[in-house]
Amino acid sequence: MFENSQESRTNLSELGEFGLIDHLTKDIKIKLPSTIKGVGDDAAVMNYEGKETLVSTDFLIEGVHFDLAYMPLKHLGYKAVIVNLSDIYAMNGTATQVIISIAVSNRFPVEALEEFYAGVQLAAKIYNVDVVGGDTTSSTSGFIISVTALGIAEKEKIAYRSGGKPNDLLVVTGDLGAAYMGLQVLEREKEVFKANPNAQPDLDQYTYLIERQLKPEARKDISEMLRQLDIQPTSMIDISDGLSSEIIHLCKSSKTGMNLFEEKIPLDPAVISVCEEFDIDSTTIALSGGEDYELLFTIPQSDFDKIKGNPNMSIIGHMTEESEGIHLITRANQKLPIIARGWNSLKEED
Amino acid sequence: MFENSQESRTNLSELGEFGLIDHLTKDIKIKLPSTIKGVGDDAAVMNYEGKETLVSTDFLIEGVHFDLAYMPLKHLGYKAVIVNLSDIYAMNGTATQVIISIAVSNRFPVEALEEFYAGVQLAAKIYNVDVVGGDTTSSTSGFIISVTALGIAEKEKIAYRSGGKPNDLLVVTGDLGAAYMGLQVLEREKEVFKANPNAQPDLDQYTYLIERQLKPEARKDISEMLRQLDIQPTSMIDISDGLSSEIIHLCKSSKTGMNLFEEKIPLDPAVISVCEEFDIDSTTIALSGGEDYELLFTIPQSDFDKIKGNPNMSIIGHMTEESEGIHLITRANQKLPIIARGWNSLKEED
Repeated sequence: MFENSQESRTNLSELGEFGLIDHLTKDIKIKLPSTIKGVGDDAAVMNYEGKETLVSTDFLIEGVHFDLAYMPLKHLGYKAVIVNLSDIYAMNGTATQVIISIAVSNRFPVEALEEFYAGVQLAAKIYNVDVVGGDTTSSTSGFIISVTALGIAEKEKIAYRSGGKPNDLLVVTGDLGAAYMGLQVLEREKEVFKANPNAQPDLDQYTYLIERQLKPEARKDISEMLRQLDIQPTSMIDISDGLSSEIIHLCKSSKTGMNLFEEKIPLDPAVISVCEEFDIDSTTIALSGGEDYELLFTIPQSDFDKIKGNPNMSIIGHMTEESEGIHLITRANQKLPIIARGWNSLKEED
Repeated sequence: MFENSQESRTNLSELGEFGLIDHLTKDIKIKLPSTIKGVGDDAAVMNYEGKETLVSTDFLIEGVHFDLAYMPLKHLGYKAVIVNLSDIYAMNGTATQVIISIAVSNRFPVEALEEFYAGVQLAAKIYNVDVVGGDTTSSTSGFIISVTALGIAEKEKIAYRSGGKPNDLLVVTGDLGAAYMGLQVLEREKEVFKANPNAQPDLDQYTYLIERQLKPEARKDISEMLRQLDIQPTSMIDISDGLSSEIIHLCKSSKTGMNLFEEKIPLDPAVISVCEEFDIDSTTIALSGGEDYELLFTIPQSDFDKIKGNPNMSIIGHMTEESEGIHLITRANQKLPIIARGWNSLKEED
């Protein structure tokens, strides 16, 4: 689990920079009619036929966003695509293309980058997007990934963060906190492994949590589902940093307040039991955990009946006037202010 | 010259991640009609009204692509934008938007990032592009920049690398080698400074070279000039890695060979004299130096009269049949094969 045993090992310098990118992208085929020219020129060329174009970009940095001790490279490639597609889906758009740039040191053999690209291509296939650019450069240390995702949307379907109104219902897809608890399990096993490299971890009961961390999925289905339900979200965001941060973003952009109901927050039973095991409050995890890549959106109260009982979506709160502030209403009916997590990941430099 | 003296110093953690990006992007205004929504949502939104969309992305990594010992942060922000716009111009397109993501460690105070963004915004203003996205994240070491540039072009105006034909003339804009020699001068002065921090470098005679390295410009003007001359390039690329690599890219994509004439390569007198001083062959520098951000393109022979004597452009060679190979014809009329530089920048990891 904790090591990639590489059968063969080709040094990057054997291919050279241009040879490497040709090698990694040679199997990439373009499929979508909007993709005119993909990998292999100064810029990719697309044609969106008058629809609005969506563009989003993200960094994934070794030691900050992932740890190769337990993140297989194929999963990393998959996740790098997913986290960016999620941003396009969070605009209620259709993702169409991705561009992947990687910076790597000599530590990585060509075979490792092939694994990474296999994950990229798998995600591109499943989510029906074209990989239209690929740059490689050298890094003095570690593995750095930059992903740019492109998408399209009809103008009137785009869901910005800013359109929420007081009394709008707050809806979240799926369940929360599992990706973060998956990370906690993996971190614990890494310590066990360090202490005893022969230990065989039994992770069966944590499968769901670990999958949510290592192989997250983006909610491509929600945009189509909302269209079928005839619901236009008034505001929308994806949950990358944790529910509390995302709620604050929506409220700040929409100039509203929020009441979030603790008892309504959807948790998988596996999250509840692992939180007990780790002696952590599961609501705190749902609020601050992050990396769930679920969608969080607001809808007018008049759409309540369209969504009631839908197993993919939970109504967890409602917007208020801005002056009322942003609060969690606890199971004990206490009203606690919701505060952003801040920049937890910023570490002191060595 | 070699240090940014920061009068004030605000720690990144005082603002937090979301506070930081708000702070850095608060003065950014969008200007172009194609920009619908810029900074501040999950994705930027653009509308290109049926034109082809161009997208390009690049990494700039501290210790690989720049050295903060002599690169002022404002210049770095400027250059980060320029190198990406150059890719759009190399498609014969019009650059319209850029997205800047940065990863930084705690080593950098907020004021340093403000300097960087001042350079980004200056470039955006001069080149008439909107900054439509800005992500910040933490880095375990150093400063990492990812820039994505977007642009538009009419379908029939796009110049790919692949359209060159045997007998097409090879044209380069401006002059070559100055950026690389500027780097050599700066590297030498850094060593002098290390040995004697009180030394006052006299760099007046190197002004052009140093400017080409620290504050390069992209050839926004060429696309318009070619339009006025009624020239449609058959193939085009920008010179980021050096003339030899770019010629190989054009020939490989166009399935042609090339004869490049040494005596025709445009060199500034400052490059010739500094090459003598450093005892380096100036043709080697022009072939391998890189970072000139000039444009290299091919035109049909029938367009010769349109370009003859134009001070912005030099005819330096012609394409041949692929089977004839890619050669430099020296001043002594020797025929030498042109070989790519390979991955020079890939360093062993510490």
